[in-house]
Amino acid sequence: MDFKKIKKPTLILDESKCRANIRMMAAKARSSGAIFRPHFKTHQTIEIGEWFREEGVNSITVSSVTMAKHFAGAGWKDITIAFPLNLREIDDAEKLTESINLNILITSFEQALFLRKRPKLKAGYFIEINTGYNRSGLDWDDHVQIMRIKDEIDHNASLRFIGFLTHSGHSYRADSIDYITNLYKDTLAKCTSLRALSPDKILLSAGDTPSCTLIENYKGFDEVRPGNFVFYDLSLKFLGVCSFEQLALTVACPVVEKNMKRKEIIVYGGGVHLSKESLKTSEGQIIFGKAVVYNETGWLSLSDKDYLRMLAQEHGIISSSEELFNSVKTGDIIGIIPVHAKWPADLLRVYHTFNNKILSGFSPK
Amino acid sequence: MDFKKIKKPTLILDESKCRANIRMMAAKARSSGAIFRPHFKTHQTIEIGEWFREEGVNSITVSSVTMAKHFAGAGWKDITIAFPLNLREIDDAEKLTESINLNILITSFEQALFLRKRPKLKAGYFIEINTGYNRSGLDWDDHVQIMRIKDEIDHNASLRFIGFLTHSGHSYRADSIDYITNLYKDTLAKCTSLRALSPDKILLSAGDTPSCTLIENYKGFDEVRPGNFVFYDLSLKFLGVCSFEQLALTVACPVVEKNMKRKEIIVYGGGVHLSKESLKTSEGQIIFGKAVVYNETGWLSLSDKDYLRMLAQEHGIISSSEELFNSVKTGDIIGIIPVHAKWPADLLRVYHTFNNKILSGFSPK
Repeated sequence: MDFKKIKKPTLILDESKCRANIRMMAAKARSSGAIFRPHFKTHQTIEIGEWFREEGVNSITVSSVTMAKHFAGAGWKDITIAFPLNLREIDDAEKLTESINLNILITSFEQALFLRKRPKLKAGYFIEINTGYNRSGLDWDDHVQIMRIKDEIDHNASLRFIGFLTHSGHSYRADSIDYITNLYKDTLAKCTSLRALSPDKILLSAGDTPSCTLIENYKGFDEVRPGNFVFYDLSLKFLGVCSFEQLALTVACPVVEKNMKRKEIIVYGGGVHLSKESLKTSEGQIIFGKAVVYNETGWLSLSDKDYLRMLAQEHGIISSSEELFNSVKTGDIIGIIPVHAKWPADLLRVYHTFNNKILSGFSPK
Repeated sequence: MDFKKIKKPTLILDESKCRANIRMMAAKARSSGAIFRPHFKTHQTIEIGEWFREEGVNSITVSSVTMAKHFAGAGWKDITIAFPLNLREIDDAEKLTESINLNILITSFEQALFLRKRPKLKAGYFIEINTGYNRSGLDWDDHVQIMRIKDEIDHNASLRFIGFLTHSGHSYRADSIDYITNLYKDTLAKCTSLRALSPDKILLSAGDTPSCTLIENYKGFDEVRPGNFVFYDLSLKFLGVCSFEQLALTVACPVVEKNMKRKEIIVYGGGVHLSKESLKTSEGQIIFGKAVVYNETGWLSLSDKDYLRMLAQEHGIISSSEELFNSVKTGDIIGIIPVHAKWPADLLRVYHTFNNKILSGFSPK
């Protein structure tokens, strides 16, 4: 990795850590007997997708029709769009079903009615279940409405029922490991009750990164769809879900000023590069990332106190320890571990690895 | 504007409101006798730049070397990069000085020393002054260090001293109009004291959008550089800085689900489109935007209660009034007024106007 060439904020990916994360999760799904259908919205990159393929992955999750088209173009033949069916993209979805096995997500009766007019849409469908995250989907115990939707589609459309899909994203709001594992059990119990709704074999699909990392065996679920584990990030480190060694993505930022009075380091690296996503430390401080220093093969933390305390459009302001402040000068490069890795991945798109690969990501906008 | 064609989150710009905002600010600068050097980082769009040119604007502000190159390529000949000099982009900056009048920003003695080795960098320079925002720059009363930097550059480099530049971004953290106008006076008084440092005529450059909107005459400053006024946004409306009628930018989002139980509307439009920037309402609620409905020529608010209460990567969850909930169905388009317009502008880049123009923005990454 030639840091001399870096002029602007740049994604730096540790390939070996990323591959280890993929391998670990694929192995857990396999030993659990669950289908591993990782969410690709975190990395959005064809080459990283190939690293999954090398671990035996054939089915993936995406969050938009555009993203499905992107990965279908790279040879993925089994894709679930885990986002409420967008009626305005139905032509594109229909076209995709000509070349791949597509699963879509139904979250309301209005969508089911709409499907009457689309006899050519030969996709699989999940009904999305809300187990408490309150984002999208039918409440898990709203059995009457769930069955009304299923009956409507099964009688009047050409889609094939796959099962129930949920995303317990409220695991990210946890304040302890125990809360996450108990939330997982809550999700599993709620979803298990849905097996009573169908005499046929159905799939129960779940899988946020916090739960999928902490739980050892996914028995009870037929499929898991975590995504963020591919890079992990500072929010997951703070939650106690992952270790520092599992963090696979940083953003390299040029140092443009050292503020001697405040002992702060100002970097070229702001909200347009990192996003404004923040988290609160145990001391109640709002932070936007953690600063690290690079060497030839990776990065290290010089102190627990080196945090991005403020982000403007292009500025990042690092509240710095003595160790960090004294070790860098204006014009050097500092690394930032992002709060949520998916945002800088989407914003910057191009990944540089320590073994000199340049991977081109994609943003489905 | 043909909303039928919209499949994905899309920037919708009201050209007449945008032009009125530009005209108003240009007229105020003119009547104040101040140079109007608007910040182009908000819109990042050559065609919107031309609307400024039609109001007599010839000098602009940008926040990166890449952005300077972009606008230099569109014929702008007088550009200030209002960001601490990035030593890693010095070759690009030097190249720019061959074709345009470039001003750079010096914020530390380290940068000044570095300039000794760049005799060909024939740019103007401002010293950045920190009046309390604590982002970058020298403290306004750190006269010894300010003079040390100025002496170093004037004796050893080929740059021309222009004056002192400040950005009072803490005006965005105000809780009242009075606070903003008093903060402006604080900034003016601090900057005015710097005139004593030079016997020559120097420029004092300032100008955040809140202050520049509320203050009628910029007397005392020689130059103003606001940017966000071009679109205004929800944060500025909440601050009491602008009116609803001045808001010029929204994001059109497809409705993908209506949650009957929670009376919520789920749209295709998440953090990758709008950013995770939030603000707190007077009731203490954290919101990510306001929902409006479109007609042929613009948008209107059906209720004060229609707020984006949650954003995921692609999902937006609108806590909806009865009026809004009953007026839309799945597959319709809803507008979102962003908290800070610059983020969706940077994320989505392509603007659609009601008079059927499509303007291509740019993101300097």
